[in-house]
Amino acid sequence: MKIPSKHIENAVDQIASLPGIGRKTALRLVLQLLSRSESEIHDFSTAFTQMKKHVLFCSNCGNISDSPICSICSNENRDHSTVCIVEDIRDVLAIEGTQSFKGVYHVLGGVISPMDGIGPSDLNINLLLSRIESGNISEIIFALSPTMEGDTTNFYIYKKLKSYDSLEFSTLSRGVAIGSELQYADDVTLSRSIVNRQPFIL
Amino acid sequence: MKIPSKHIENAVDQIASLPGIGRKTALRLVLQLLSRSESEIHDFSTAFTQMKKHVLFCSNCGNISDSPICSICSNENRDHSTVCIVEDIRDVLAIEGTQSFKGVYHVLGGVISPMDGIGPSDLNINLLLSRIESGNISEIIFALSPTMEGDTTNFYIYKKLKSYDSLEFSTLSRGVAIGSELQYADDVTLSRSIVNRQPFIL
Repeated sequence: MKIPSKHIENAVDQIASLPGIGRKTALRLVLQLLSRSESEIHDFSTAFTQMKKHVLFCSNCGNISDSPICSICSNENRDHSTVCIVEDIRDVLAIEGTQSFKGVYHVLGGVISPMDGIGPSDLNINLLLSRIESGNISEIIFALSPTMEGDTTNFYIYKKLKSYDSLEFSTLSRGVAIGSELQYADDVTLSRSIVNRQPFIL
Repeated sequence: MKIPSKHIENAVDQIASLPGIGRKTALRLVLQLLSRSESEIHDFSTAFTQMKKHVLFCSNCGNISDSPICSICSNENRDHSTVCIVEDIRDVLAIEGTQSFKGVYHVLGGVISPMDGIGPSDLNINLLLSRIESGNISEIIFALSPTMEGDTTNFYIYKKLKSYDSLEFSTLSRGVAIGSELQYADDVTLSRSIVNRQPFIL
């Protein structure tokens, strides 16, 4: 696909550099952008430079924020003794969306993945240790994805923390998803959900 | 999904304004952008403003171009007497990709679609008429999509042009796609392809 304009070509390259977007899709998006007014394009472009310039990471938990301490960490109505460890900012948004958790978070910024060259030192683990050192934390919830990398990271952090006698550890419950059909559940999930069966409550 | 930073929120809104991209995907893309360096973000942003500023539409055929006349219209080795009418710049790229067409194009910039409020006056049709008035054109190829809107547009243009005795009209051949299985072809296509069957050539 040879595009007869190097400016369009450049814009397509930039959009196609985003994960999961191919050049055909990128061209469709770029042509849609091209049909917008100059001020709309200006708004589109400055959104990203402004974001890079102004977005901060909470110095307590690693969440994104417009201030040095994020709105969750600075909220006095939340339970600061329960810390939920997540991989990514999107996991914070997903759990916040449920409105079922009143504790605080710690965002690792990834999981240990030797295949991708991500080791423990690339993650936000030291900040977690210093939060725990400062006391006041009584429960750690491991909420990483149930993958090999997530489990490795859980184990690594657990090893670092298990010497703290005051800490309780928990993890998200695993089992058959609500609303899903049993026959389509995978073997490991189904097996875990029958072994770790829960009391029946009407 | 309440994002705890208005700068990220704004960037997500901008990406989600692109057709076919929802807010969850937009957030994933924005967080990937956020992980880039400041100069990379700068390159990303300026690609679109530069494109809007510098891209021209060929004053002859409506194709995108970096110069007032596009590289296809200014190419003397092409057959300027055969004009292929297409809806969109992407159709030009698709046909050019086949390397099977040596004529020139006319890009309408859409098709007549009353449902979307697009009438003949919104399309690049007057420019086509003036190209034909100037003589030298002997064949018009209708290469619009085989949809109701495409057929309506074909018919509208044909009515405008049929009084020119010197013009021949053709359309892309319709039929079963090469490499596809017969049983999955839709009824209309299959019926057309058997009625308009072609001589068998080994």
